[in-house]
Amino acid sequence: MKFTLTHESSNTKARRGVIETDHGTIQTPIFMPVGTQATVKTMTPEDLRAIRAQIILSNTYHLFLRPGTEIIQEAGGLHKFMHWDGPILTDSGGFQVFSLSHRRKITEEGVTFRSHIDGSKQFLSPEKSIEIQHILGSDIIMAFDECAPYPASRDYIMHSAERTSRWAERCKIYHDDKPGQNLFGIIQGGMFKDLRRQSAEQLVAMDFPGYAVGGLSVGEPIETMCDVLDYTTDFMPKDKPRYLMGVGTPDFLFEAVERGIDMADCVLPTRNARKGTCMTSHGKLVIKNAQYAHDFRPLDEECDCYVCRNYSRAYIRHLFKANEILGMHLASYHNLYFLLNLMDNIRKSIEEDNFLQYKDDFYGKYGYNNKK
Amino acid sequence: MKFTLTHESSNTKARRGVIETDHGTIQTPIFMPVGTQATVKTMTPEDLRAIRAQIILSNTYHLFLRPGTEIIQEAGGLHKFMHWDGPILTDSGGFQVFSLSHRRKITEEGVTFRSHIDGSKQFLSPEKSIEIQHILGSDIIMAFDECAPYPASRDYIMHSAERTSRWAERCKIYHDDKPGQNLFGIIQGGMFKDLRRQSAEQLVAMDFPGYAVGGLSVGEPIETMCDVLDYTTDFMPKDKPRYLMGVGTPDFLFEAVERGIDMADCVLPTRNARKGTCMTSHGKLVIKNAQYAHDFRPLDEECDCYVCRNYSRAYIRHLFKANEILGMHLASYHNLYFLLNLMDNIRKSIEEDNFLQYKDDFYGKYGYNNKK
Repeated sequence: MKFTLTHESSNTKARRGVIETDHGTIQTPIFMPVGTQATVKTMTPEDLRAIRAQIILSNTYHLFLRPGTEIIQEAGGLHKFMHWDGPILTDSGGFQVFSLSHRRKITEEGVTFRSHIDGSKQFLSPEKSIEIQHILGSDIIMAFDECAPYPASRDYIMHSAERTSRWAERCKIYHDDKPGQNLFGIIQGGMFKDLRRQSAEQLVAMDFPGYAVGGLSVGEPIETMCDVLDYTTDFMPKDKPRYLMGVGTPDFLFEAVERGIDMADCVLPTRNARKGTCMTSHGKLVIKNAQYAHDFRPLDEECDCYVCRNYSRAYIRHLFKANEILGMHLASYHNLYFLLNLMDNIRKSIEEDNFLQYKDDFYGKYGYNNKK
Repeated sequence: MKFTLTHESSNTKARRGVIETDHGTIQTPIFMPVGTQATVKTMTPEDLRAIRAQIILSNTYHLFLRPGTEIIQEAGGLHKFMHWDGPILTDSGGFQVFSLSHRRKITEEGVTFRSHIDGSKQFLSPEKSIEIQHILGSDIIMAFDECAPYPASRDYIMHSAERTSRWAERCKIYHDDKPGQNLFGIIQGGMFKDLRRQSAEQLVAMDFPGYAVGGLSVGEPIETMCDVLDYTTDFMPKDKPRYLMGVGTPDFLFEAVERGIDMADCVLPTRNARKGTCMTSHGKLVIKNAQYAHDFRPLDEECDCYVCRNYSRAYIRHLFKANEILGMHLASYHNLYFLLNLMDNIRKSIEEDNFLQYKDDFYGKYGYNNKK
């Protein structure tokens, strides 16, 4: 994997770069659509290509439990299994073990837990997570981390972040630079500057090809996230990609890019879409609302995506009211396009060194407070 | 609308023809995918084009109740509303009033019923059905008929078929040859030859541009359906398209075409698909079955559709087990392609005058009894 910075904003930490992987090139900053269970919900890989998705994310935790690594190994890896030949990033399962599983027991060795699907007893550890991700064959793999709850005490966060660093070391040893797969470390430390610094320093000392910021966008106010990001990215090397985990609303993406983030992912654009909440240039649009019953404009009048070129709000509302799957597909398609197109515009604004101006214009229209 | 017969089978009643409508040309015999609520479930119009769908069906009953004709009128008709510019056939609502609604009361004037969606009191009549179909703007519209249950007494069927004829007359008067829309009459008469003859004679006397056979595929054995079709098509004019309502399995389609049917529709290919039952050259395949967990072959090894070219049984099974919408989409896509491709092959076999041979070969592989 090769990361090249091509442009830097003169008045913010925003940066424009290129990541080269065995499955293709990624222009950063980028939003990564999430395909939790080896599918970006309702979207074919051809749809993803059509909206210019450059890399997608999938989940070790989910794929480990179902269909299981054996089937994906027999398929020849995750790319072939799901018919997506572009870059894939897989999460380590760390976050999901803590957010989804039942009766988990954490030891230094790893985490024993009950599957959220069938209650079966399971075990994940740094080594096991990397072993699974090796089988998945994803281009970017993540270290197995402990994601602390929010809020949590300084003491809890400190011990959790230190364990995350020890686990990262074990991941790195087990990974042993397997060709074509690139292991990123995850910086934890909650909302504590000194702990973020310590976590970053410990991980940077291990020399990963990229670093993620974990434990943000977990319920804290956006101002807190911005503060933490502000100092955390300062602790991260400039010449490695920086990935903010779990962020996928326009404001969070702008604020993250402004603070030097190169990659982000989130299930929100597709999850919201399936409930009928669509993103537009003028803010959120809840398509089931009665006001759209006779509205024959596209979801977003300024959007040129397939959905906005061909379907009206009235029609998409009808699909949702009639429980038609096509409604969820069209809303997902549009929301993902909206974010990917936004990132495209953000990249251009960095190239032209007018990121803050673009952000200001976007916030003004979208209805965000632009004083963050 | 213009119907031209291009080939006739020398040893069966199978026929090959062309229907020309304002929204495009239809090669017959044809299977019509069903888009009950202004969408063929899980499929975009572009998907339908890709599988070479020539005409789709939609339902007056459903669209009348939701979203209501006012919205579709404001949209500029059903084609624009749903972004499908090919031919559309709409059913009259007759069948659905009898199969879906609650507390219906039939009088000579029409049918009063309760909506299956919200229990509201509604009324449909021959005139009302045609009025709605005029607003929908479908290329082929159907007369409002009474679809008798199966089994039913001769007396019941006789009175029901006679009412259907009187209603057809009222539909024709109300329709008054509105340009671009073609009203088909529906022959009823249950499983009684003299009643079918009487129904056909009454409708043919009204000179419709096409005729449907209603009240078949309602639970009777396939042999009974074949018998009734055998004599009913003999009562129908040769120079008008013949449409068998509610048929969509390969055997029913073969048997119908053999008896001179040109058009058919059914929700089964998509409904079964959403439950994971797929059609293949070698019979039905229930994708959720454990035997496919490690099966990396396509759904149908002899199929060249997008799904079979790109996805394995193991992957599609995983999608179904994980409740992923993409699974329902891929299975629907394949099933519809399978039937449309089958009809394509049937058309070629009629052109080459080897329909029975093709049927025999297909039945042998599929596992059907070919002595029907």
